[in-house]
Amino acid sequence: MRNFDEDNITQAVLDSLGGCATPRTRQISEALVRHLHAFVKEIEPSEAEWAAAIAFLTRTGQMCSDTRQEFILLSDTLGVSMLVDAINHRFDEDTTQTTVLGPFYVEEAEHFPIGAHISRKSDGLALLVEGTIEDSRGNPIAGALIETWHADDRGFYDVQRDTGKSALDMRARFRTDQAGHFWYRSVVPAAYPIPNDGPVGEMLDAQGRHPFRPAHVHFKLSAPGFETIVTHVFIDDDPYLDSDVVFGVKDALITKLSRIEGCASPGGHEVEPGTSLIAYRFVLPDKTRN
Amino acid sequence: MRNFDEDNITQAVLDSLGGCATPRTRQISEALVRHLHAFVKEIEPSEAEWAAAIAFLTRTGQMCSDTRQEFILLSDTLGVSMLVDAINHRFDEDTTQTTVLGPFYVEEAEHFPIGAHISRKSDGLALLVEGTIEDSRGNPIAGALIETWHADDRGFYDVQRDTGKSALDMRARFRTDQAGHFWYRSVVPAAYPIPNDGPVGEMLDAQGRHPFRPAHVHFKLSAPGFETIVTHVFIDDDPYLDSDVVFGVKDALITKLSRIEGCASPGGHEVEPGTSLIAYRFVLPDKTRN
Repeated sequence: MRNFDEDNITQAVLDSLGGCATPRTRQISEALVRHLHAFVKEIEPSEAEWAAAIAFLTRTGQMCSDTRQEFILLSDTLGVSMLVDAINHRFDEDTTQTTVLGPFYVEEAEHFPIGAHISRKSDGLALLVEGTIEDSRGNPIAGALIETWHADDRGFYDVQRDTGKSALDMRARFRTDQAGHFWYRSVVPAAYPIPNDGPVGEMLDAQGRHPFRPAHVHFKLSAPGFETIVTHVFIDDDPYLDSDVVFGVKDALITKLSRIEGCASPGGHEVEPGTSLIAYRFVLPDKTRN
Repeated sequence: MRNFDEDNITQAVLDSLGGCATPRTRQISEALVRHLHAFVKEIEPSEAEWAAAIAFLTRTGQMCSDTRQEFILLSDTLGVSMLVDAINHRFDEDTTQTTVLGPFYVEEAEHFPIGAHISRKSDGLALLVEGTIEDSRGNPIAGALIETWHADDRGFYDVQRDTGKSALDMRARFRTDQAGHFWYRSVVPAAYPIPNDGPVGEMLDAQGRHPFRPAHVHFKLSAPGFETIVTHVFIDDDPYLDSDVVFGVKDALITKLSRIEGCASPGGHEVEPGTSLIAYRFVLPDKTRN
């Protein structure tokens, strides 16, 4: 193999992949080479532009830390994370819609008793979250694991404000009760810009795009025998619902942020009057149905 | 813009690019989105596979340092660097063929007088390099800048052995004399594996590919009024000429490593008997011809 030019280099690289360890590795490698070469042939980058692309990817990797994943942000803002999400969740329409995990998920969040206040360090308007987890026939799922996390009233996640395990706040794990219910107290999250002081922020600037996501609460829901669902519940009337920078909004995931006038929520939980309420019914797909 | 699925997400991301700062930014961004989404739709990655891709790119960025550019290695080993090189050097066939810059170029190499020995710290068989730089009509180019660098007899570049400016070795700048000639003394370079203790090495392993490049000497040649040429001269009889891991070999760049039997080279330079000779005639394209 010698004498490669624009016409024969792609086939030459494909020909070098015959020894891949697995058929899947070969399939992915071949597709990567074909699509990457097609991209380069279409845009015909100057050498300076290709060097800038190398530098952009390098800075993106070097921006990553324990609490910052710039390549996930890049995948999110190019719509790839939502595409991968859609490919992996071809569920029936009667189950809860999925959306991106995002870069702020933390595996080791603390387990709380139902009803706990999970915002110990964050100011903001009082919030009650009431959820139900059911199967697609309307039966409650008891003992389901809820992982939930959200931003504060200025749009910052705990891990953006401080580092270390003691910094964790506004994130928790719960289990549903026998009726498939869970509820917790926190503060109303705000819309926020994704971290935009790095390469992804530069890209958004160059593309004339704002970096905002509409206000939302994250949920990861799992139970034996059911598909795990990663999703958000969005708050209605947010100005960014139609221009979410990561393309994550679905109508079925938007709920009204209502105000509780009395001392008890619709679910019967005692609250301060004026507390805001997010209520949502989640439906997990059966594992066997896919 | 809401409710994105596999069928409409690509168009939604394209629609978000209307505010790009320049037409070129929009062209590149649109092509990136189309080709990246087409790749993902073709391979349908699991969420674990996409997370592994994110982690691979992150590690690739974090492997980069002042003396290691893992994303250039990735571009090189996927044949993209040679493709970009071909796109940017559509010169006539009678001028010197180009090939990849590679990750070991150092801008601040020392200027030497013609004839100098540029390997002060490296053992190996004695080498004389004799070059001529001409235009495409056969006229010598006087005062042309030669930047040259190569590996040692174990296949390592100076910057792989040690760090800092004092480590620089087997790399130099020269100017051609009035007859367009330059020559220098060094050691015969060996074939070598590209650095394969990082993500690119893992990729090559998974793809069943060896990491070797055939033995060569790098040249970057520039002169006012001419296109700058980045190329290698390869040594014939190398076992890796037909499987260069970066797809860089061209027949026109291979030269015989001959042995000088007497005390003077064909160019009339005094040498120890048995010194190896690499001789090459470079032809720079006129700037105006492209």
